[in-house]
Amino acid sequence: MALFEQVTALDAVGPYEVLQRLPGAEVRFVGRRRGEVRTDNGFLGLTVDCTFDEVGNPDVILVPGGIGTRALVHDDMVLDWIRNAHETSQFTTSVCTGSLLLAAAGLLNGRKATTHFSARPLLLKYGATPTEERVVREGKIITAAGVSSGIDMALRLAELLSDATTAKALQLMIEYDPQAPYDAGALHKVDANVLSRVQELARDKN
Amino acid sequence: MALFEQVTALDAVGPYEVLQRLPGAEVRFVGRRRGEVRTDNGFLGLTVDCTFDEVGNPDVILVPGGIGTRALVHDDMVLDWIRNAHETSQFTTSVCTGSLLLAAAGLLNGRKATTHFSARPLLLKYGATPTEERVVREGKIITAAGVSSGIDMALRLAELLSDATTAKALQLMIEYDPQAPYDAGALHKVDANVLSRVQELARDKN
Repeated sequence: MALFEQVTALDAVGPYEVLQRLPGAEVRFVGRRRGEVRTDNGFLGLTVDCTFDEVGNPDVILVPGGIGTRALVHDDMVLDWIRNAHETSQFTTSVCTGSLLLAAAGLLNGRKATTHFSARPLLLKYGATPTEERVVREGKIITAAGVSSGIDMALRLAELLSDATTAKALQLMIEYDPQAPYDAGALHKVDANVLSRVQELARDKN
Repeated sequence: MALFEQVTALDAVGPYEVLQRLPGAEVRFVGRRRGEVRTDNGFLGLTVDCTFDEVGNPDVILVPGGIGTRALVHDDMVLDWIRNAHETSQFTTSVCTGSLLLAAAGLLNGRKATTHFSARPLLLKYGATPTEERVVREGKIITAAGVSSGIDMALRLAELLSDATTAKALQLMIEYDPQAPYDAGALHKVDANVLSRVQELARDKN
């Protein structure tokens, strides 16, 4: 799992909480240098344990999103790592705007992929064909939509890496039985008031 | 948000990803000493930025769970912090086995509360009345069930701290529109095969 400055924590931690429980799983958090990176707003520090060159051949690559991806689409070190690791990976995955990095690395040219709803135009710009699906599989590449969608993606990945019984067991272990108080988790489900509040909140953060 | 060795990352990061986006929110990760703690299996490091005595009067307390809670139920420093912070908090909350710490601190005596399905007997032992609900509010105390339930709890809390439009906007910003591949997220929803796989996986981890 790649980490970088201004990563969105849940993009990584959602899938992590599923995949770390797979029998025999070894999860490594990898980045430019060992040590702490801070999340998008700086409130939380996460530890990079391995540099990119220390983890050249992961079975599974997971690239989370976050505002930090906007700089990394121009970062050859990161894009080269993604390209090289993808050569031998069993699955190459992203959550949220992590797919911008897969696209910038050239992995999504002409392929269907998903991302945070606000980043679909950017994903198109980098050569992918954005869809509104929550989880998109194209061969060994799996992209997930915004932030929390990584949990749904990881459960599908868990089945691919093991079996459906194990994936269901993992779902139970994290008690993933969602009961959101509203049904407002997708762009087409909200009214204009909610949308304008989203715009205010996003502006406050930038 | 309290952190400690062997915390379950998603218990904290799920609610964090909602609450950090509230206008004016300042999220602080607090623990015994500043620096890194490792999650339950050691795969991920999270940073404690403030010691308990530096954050005496938070508006909202969130106590996550994890296997590390089993030692902390006997840790007076942590329990005293919870008791004292609860005196002046607007909301005192827990996710997963974090409720064991609220209970051990004496906050849940005779009160309805929830926790990870596997920890209900322990929660009873510490004086609470365990329920199977996903999110339980008793006055200013809100407890959530296992791991991923903290997201649902945080959305309810976001409405209590602001308003429903804001909470819906936050749900959209994290695209929380769950589409799990199975319906296996609660104990009563799985068959004996899945349950026995859960027991195998839990054994592997201990």
